[in-house]
Amino acid sequence: MDDGGRGNVTKWQTLHVGQDGIPRELEDEIASEYALTVVLNGDEFSTLVCSPTHQEELVYGFLASEGAIRSISQVKKLTIDGDRGYAYVVLDGEPSIGRERSSKRFIGSCCGKGRQFYYHGDMLTARTIMTRMTVTDEQVWSLMAALQESSADFISTGGVHNAALCTPDELLAVRTDIGRHNALDKLYGYSMLRGVRMGDKLIAFSGRLSSEVVLKAAKMGCGLLLSKSAPTDLALKLADELGITCIGFIRGRKLSVYTHRERLIISHRLP
Amino acid sequence: MDDGGRGNVTKWQTLHVGQDGIPRELEDEIASEYALTVVLNGDEFSTLVCSPTHQEELVYGFLASEGAIRSISQVKKLTIDGDRGYAYVVLDGEPSIGRERSSKRFIGSCCGKGRQFYYHGDMLTARTIMTRMTVTDEQVWSLMAALQESSADFISTGGVHNAALCTPDELLAVRTDIGRHNALDKLYGYSMLRGVRMGDKLIAFSGRLSSEVVLKAAKMGCGLLLSKSAPTDLALKLADELGITCIGFIRGRKLSVYTHRERLIISHRLP
Repeated sequence: MDDGGRGNVTKWQTLHVGQDGIPRELEDEIASEYALTVVLNGDEFSTLVCSPTHQEELVYGFLASEGAIRSISQVKKLTIDGDRGYAYVVLDGEPSIGRERSSKRFIGSCCGKGRQFYYHGDMLTARTIMTRMTVTDEQVWSLMAALQESSADFISTGGVHNAALCTPDELLAVRTDIGRHNALDKLYGYSMLRGVRMGDKLIAFSGRLSSEVVLKAAKMGCGLLLSKSAPTDLALKLADELGITCIGFIRGRKLSVYTHRERLIISHRLP
Repeated sequence: MDDGGRGNVTKWQTLHVGQDGIPRELEDEIASEYALTVVLNGDEFSTLVCSPTHQEELVYGFLASEGAIRSISQVKKLTIDGDRGYAYVVLDGEPSIGRERSSKRFIGSCCGKGRQFYYHGDMLTARTIMTRMTVTDEQVWSLMAALQESSADFISTGGVHNAALCTPDELLAVRTDIGRHNALDKLYGYSMLRGVRMGDKLIAFSGRLSSEVVLKAAKMGCGLLLSKSAPTDLALKLADELGITCIGFIRGRKLSVYTHRERLIISHRLP
């Protein structure tokens, strides 16, 4: 399995007061925070506040999420200046959707009905997921347990989010970031760079299922989202519309399924 | 105490599988997600994905955080169209810092040394905190316990963040949002609208202490940050420079103090 990578933590001299009330000096591990400015065809596009690992995947996934690229073939050159925190991207032509347009809010004429997108870019890039794949409750619990075990940085610092690309049986890749969306963009970049087919994959996520997370899954073409956290209402409305199964509050042997429950097979049989 | 407000939750028909493995249908409470587009002097400024409560405070706090206003007196008119999710702001004159400039990344000439700001706006608006206030470990635990108890929405949905403005002895106001930064911007707006003196106040926060959280505290003039979560390294470097005490991992009767520990009085005396 391809993991979240080391390098996401930094040491810090800390005074810790424990259960016994006794203050102790210790060298603590803290989540690293890093600023990566994406320069697209010579123009400053955006600054991502992120964890410093897997920057190339992050840039690809972010540009695809924003709708600036549709495939990796549009990127002629990507150079990362790690010391200064800059990613220079040269596209073969103009971006598919410009930043100006993608970040303008879009209000549809049938406001409150049908799909609710905030942005033009989302409307153009999110697609409805038609996959017939299924997953059992046992597989869901075991994937989420594997995600939590896999994440050394999360265990040591408590300050990062994890996202994993999975088959029903195993984690294929885990990406870690202080930013919820960055962890997903790194996975998106990973799947683009390797040409991963998403129709039979799941995404397991440590963070909350917000509308942006659901939209990212739709853009990636993934129909099953697992999370140990809670969803938001707009996330569920979008997931319902976009054909995405949302399973949340996966803790121990508990879970809640909110949308498209036809993809979840529950092993319990009523007597 | 002024609380986070109701209206941050929505009902959703959910299939829940519990410890016993038995699937049960239930009407679950889900965190609401709402898009509020801020129009500043007729131009679209930004869209905030937020919880729908305390939108006026959110707009004031967001504009101050971004450096677009320095005081409420600059706002001639604020109209909120709740149905369509628009906030129309008319300033008395031009914004103090334009969006274009505030969102451009700023790299200082002494990169890696001294204060690290990502943005011009932060450099201009964050100030060093000089307060001599102190807090005891007992007060810290009791404030964090009060924050968690105060938050009915958090308890029911698990999907929102809480920020509270406090004296060492009590919570003055709690604000709730699905966005970490929105909860703080609501508090910022609250303190601006009421002219609260921040020099003897603390902020208790349910989320991670990132650089943006520390910068917001510095802009508000608050010298003490409490969190039940972890900090990032950049947050601590900034807090160290800006004179802010960061206390994290406050859980039960445990805590860790990372910066400016002179403001924390630990009751334990070594034998």
